Amino acid sequence: MSSATTLVALLHGPDQPGLVAKVAGWIFARGGNILHADQHRDMEAGVFFQRVEWISAAGPGQTDRERTEFTAFAASLGMQARVSDNSQRPRVVMLVSKADHCFHDLALRWQMGEFAGELVAVLSNHPDLAETARGYGLPYHVIPVTAATKAEAEARQLALLRELKADLVVLARYMQVLSADLLDAVGCPVINIHHSFLPAFAGGRPYHQAHARGVKLIGATAHYATRDLDEGPIIHQDVGRVTHRHGVEDLIRMGRDLEKRVLAQAVRWHLDSRVLAYGNKTVVFD
Amino acid sequence: MSSATTLVALLHGPDQPGLVAKVAGWIFARGGNILHADQHRDMEAGVFFQRVEWISAAGPGQTDRERTEFTAFAASLGMQARVSDNSQRPRVVMLVSKADHCFHDLALRWQMGEFAGELVAVLSNHPDLAETARGYGLPYHVIPVTAATKAEAEARQLALLRELKADLVVLARYMQVLSADLLDAVGCPVINIHHSFLPAFAGGRPYHQAHARGVKLIGATAHYATRDLDEGPIIHQDVGRVTHRHGVEDLIRMGRDLEKRVLAQAVRWHLDSRVLAYGNKTVVFD
Amino acid sequence: MSSATTLVALLHGPDQPGLVAKVAGWIFARGGNILHADQHRDMEAGVFFQRVEWISAAGPGQTDRERTEFTAFAASLGMQARVSDNSQRPRVVMLVSKADHCFHDLALRWQMGEFAGELVAVLSNHPDLAETARGYGLPYHVIPVTAATKAEAEARQLALLRELKADLVVLARYMQVLSADLLDAVGCPVINIHHSFLPAFAGGRPYHQAHARGVKLIGATAHYATRDLDEGPIIHQDVGRVTHRHGVEDLIRMGRDLEKRVLAQAVRWHLDSRVLAYGNKTVVFD
Amino acid sequence: MSSATTLVALLHGPDQPGLVAKVAGWIFARGGNILHADQHRDMEAGVFFQRVEWISAAGPGQTDRERTEFTAFAASLGMQARVSDNSQRPRVVMLVSKADHCFHDLALRWQMGEFAGELVAVLSNHPDLAETARGYGLPYHVIPVTAATKAEAEARQLALLRELKADLVVLARYMQVLSADLLDAVGCPVINIHHSFLPAFAGGRPYHQAHARGVKLIGATAHYATRDLDEGPIIHQDVGRVTHRHGVEDLIRMGRDLEKRVLAQAVRWHLDSRVLAYGNKTVVFD
Repeated sequence: MSSATTLVALLHGPDQPGLVAKVAGWIFARGGNILHADQHRDMEAGVFFQRVEWISAAGPGQTDRERTEFTAFAASLGMQARVSDNSQRPRVVMLVSKADHCFHDLALRWQMGEFAGELVAVLSNHPDLAETARGYGLPYHVIPVTAATKAEAEARQLALLRELKADLVVLARYMQVLSADLLDAVGCPVINIHHSFLPAFAGGRPYHQAHARGVKLIGATAHYATRDLDEGPIIHQDVGRVTHRHGVEDLIRMGRDLEKRVLAQAVRWHLDSRVLAYGNKTVVFD
Repeated sequence: MSSATTLVALLHGPDQPGLVAKVAGWIFARGGNILHADQHRDMEAGVFFQRVEWISAAGPGQTDRERTEFTAFAASLGMQARVSDNSQRPRVVMLVSKADHCFHDLALRWQMGEFAGELVAVLSNHPDLAETARGYGLPYHVIPVTAATKAEAEARQLALLRELKADLVVLARYMQVLSADLLDAVGCPVINIHHSFLPAFAGGRPYHQAHARGVKLIGATAHYATRDLDEGPIIHQDVGRVTHRHGVEDLIRMGRDLEKRVLAQAVRWHLDSRVLAYGNKTVVFD
Repeated sequence: MSSATTLVALLHGPDQPGLVAKVAGWIFARGGNILHADQHRDMEAGVFFQRVEWISAAGPGQTDRERTEFTAFAASLGMQARVSDNSQRPRVVMLVSKADHCFHDLALRWQMGEFAGELVAVLSNHPDLAETARGYGLPYHVIPVTAATKAEAEARQLALLRELKADLVVLARYMQVLSADLLDAVGCPVINIHHSFLPAFAGGRPYHQAHARGVKLIGATAHYATRDLDEGPIIHQDVGRVTHRHGVEDLIRMGRDLEKRVLAQAVRWHLDSRVLAYGNKTVVFD
Repeated sequence: MSSATTLVALLHGPDQPGLVAKVAGWIFARGGNILHADQHRDMEAGVFFQRVEWISAAGPGQTDRERTEFTAFAASLGMQARVSDNSQRPRVVMLVSKADHCFHDLALRWQMGEFAGELVAVLSNHPDLAETARGYGLPYHVIPVTAATKAEAEARQLALLRELKADLVVLARYMQVLSADLLDAVGCPVINIHHSFLPAFAGGRPYHQAHARGVKLIGATAHYATRDLDEGPIIHQDVGRVTHRHGVEDLIRMGRDLEKRVLAQAVRWHLDSRVLAYGNKTVVFD
């Protein structure tokens, strides 16, 4: 089975009878063998969602036609489809600032082979992590951002992301807000980690907000970045228990562990084609 | 859709290409509409598992033929199938002794409508909970068990369970071990709650064992009862955190909460036809 | 030790050197033996908090003088103290509406002996749970509340709570907002359970809000009720994991389990004199 | 307060009245100010445990006498005491083999300043992580171990640990069993991470055991290493949820995260003088 190519399709569209059978039949008719298929119906909205993973009869690197045909077939059923080929690993660019815990965590997981993608570069608004990135064998690009130069800096970022052919951008505690224009233009998903259990404590300094409110749980939220800051579709969340004994510094330390785990899980699911965003929500086929 | 009848099939057998498509095609050809389908492959064992839920074109109470035909169809693919009709609610008998926390918990959840089945009777080796059962409107049967009378008592239990047409037996902290003979003869699944995170602390007085060992987590395990005591397929487990401050009494109190939740979840999943036992394990399609 | 009387003091005030030694010395000098002592310093605010539990040399029912003297001693150190005697069990009144899950849960835990207090009565704005309360042997009082009669109804509630000598009021999914006037006048703490992880989804229909936002965790929060709705000091919080598969009805069902556990834990801690509220936060000596 | 020296004492011995007052009085009489004090009574065993942390009136580096006197004072009360001075950071040696996840995790946390100690060296039976250690600025020592050379290798290990003046040895997935002789001779605590929720799945290949048993939770356990393999006092444990979808490889991946967190927390607590081992258990003053 070493020469097998696996395709994964993420589909969604208006619900109608027979969709599961039609999709399975289409794949079977082309000699494919379904490994996994998972579907969800949003009963209120009348929307059908499916993730289907199959071994293609096409050889490695020969699946372009099958992918195009599947997308057309899905469209004939009124559905949008995104089909990926596991032999073509997505290209990921990580954006960082000075905090390095998510950066190290993702880089080490990449070394371990935990992700179905390639970490092709690190982009930062600060030079601080350049040497560390080099230690991981990762190209490191610095584009400083100031209020005055933001538009220009974003133009450079955009050019670089295009040049790098990024399929996914990961904001690993990148401390600049990406403009709506950049998000519109970037042409690939952007995953952000927010250090609170959104929608609580949106905005800045969430651990300080949490400490001031006296909550007994702190959290972290990985979500797709959208033009509405901290409002994008949530991919994953987790929390940890705190007590009155924990000061803001403890919350920040404990939060680092949450941020690492939550962001890594969201990136893993995304790269495994397990996340389908629609409206302001996600369906995660875990 | 109020007159719709939903069927759920749990299937397993040797893996082969095209199973998903064949099952979906069979259902579609009979006018059924698949609501959910979830499958799993045990790669090492080469076994295919599937849960598929569909709206049948047959009217309510008219699905016997479709169920029989589906089972035969599955057999033709080398698979065993169990098909249930959601208009026929399984009959559940709860076995209790003196401890009443799981008993109250399950009875109240039944009142709330949390389970897809009927709680038809309570059977005990003690009279203590008779009045409480009456308060819930539940028939209560007492069959005392002693070492000397065990065989005779089990014969009476078996006769009663058959008379009650039990589809599921729930051991809600029932303190007698069911003999292998009874388990062989009962003809329906038996779910037990064990008050430890099995396989740790199998056998008696697990909270005392846990306290003596100084563990930092206590647990509870819901499993199908088999002739190998505490060795049956695990359906669900959960744990709670303990410290040196907790004595055995605290562990017992905290354990009650774990036992309630874990047993209720296992019973819910079983009644929703989400649990497929094979060998010494379960596949839970949650 | 069966005739021993245990006292618990909760203290707080401006931090200064020697407080632990002074308190311990005061108790030792009167023949008391400290069982537990736990203290906390809020470094930013410069506030000292302590919970100290000791066996008094005074006989049962003879501790009034020691309690008064301790309070005066604490005041001499600039601290406020609340001292309770474990032989005098606090009187608790539960307020309910129609939802009965927290009501059953608390009543059953009381039967089990899980709480260091007496559940003396249930007060409701509806007659629905009257018979159930009677089954638990609990007096049940109905005071209907409408927009038009709210002031008058609250006057009756207040009179009843005074007559019952309530030491604690528990809002067990009581669906009316208590007015600031009532909260000011009631003279004892009021614990409420909110069905979200506050501050997220404050206000009404939090499960609907959570579902609409697509969060991956739902929560429950037990807090002291204050005139600022949903803003009182948080005592305990917990969360559960949800997925896209869970509709609003599932969130409500899963939320019931969270609400029961979180409220019961908060009530247990309060009755064990483990919760010290200051400002908008709590210190929980667990 | 920058010149303040903080002392922490861990005490235990037979319970008797007045211990809290006597300890607090002793400290106060020497001009010390108690920051935190936490005590525990094991009612069954009649043992008193305390952790007390105070600001000493002695200047930095001048606390030797106070520490000696406190230990003598504790002995006069029948108690054993261990007193540490926070200006003297414990020296930690990490033992590793080839797996690097705990190694990276601990090294990065050290860089972050999360631990109250110095990581002075890494010792391995393999050369594989030498360069990585160098990247962290950590001395790396290789002492190969084979069945034939075990005794000789342990003699070299022991000599090295003495030369390094190790106050704590951390087995960060070190794959050789330390002999009882070495553990007796090493003269400082040894913390090990076991990749299961002990006592379940003691011994080798615990993830394979867990997969074969079909458990729904996997765990990790940090404990002090003793001559009874996998039987030493447990410091910390945590678990993660698994399903039938997870193969052994997934369990290993998920387990890495558990191992990292559990070991790091145990090391942090130990270095903060929060862990008191007695018999086969620990008291963790968290």
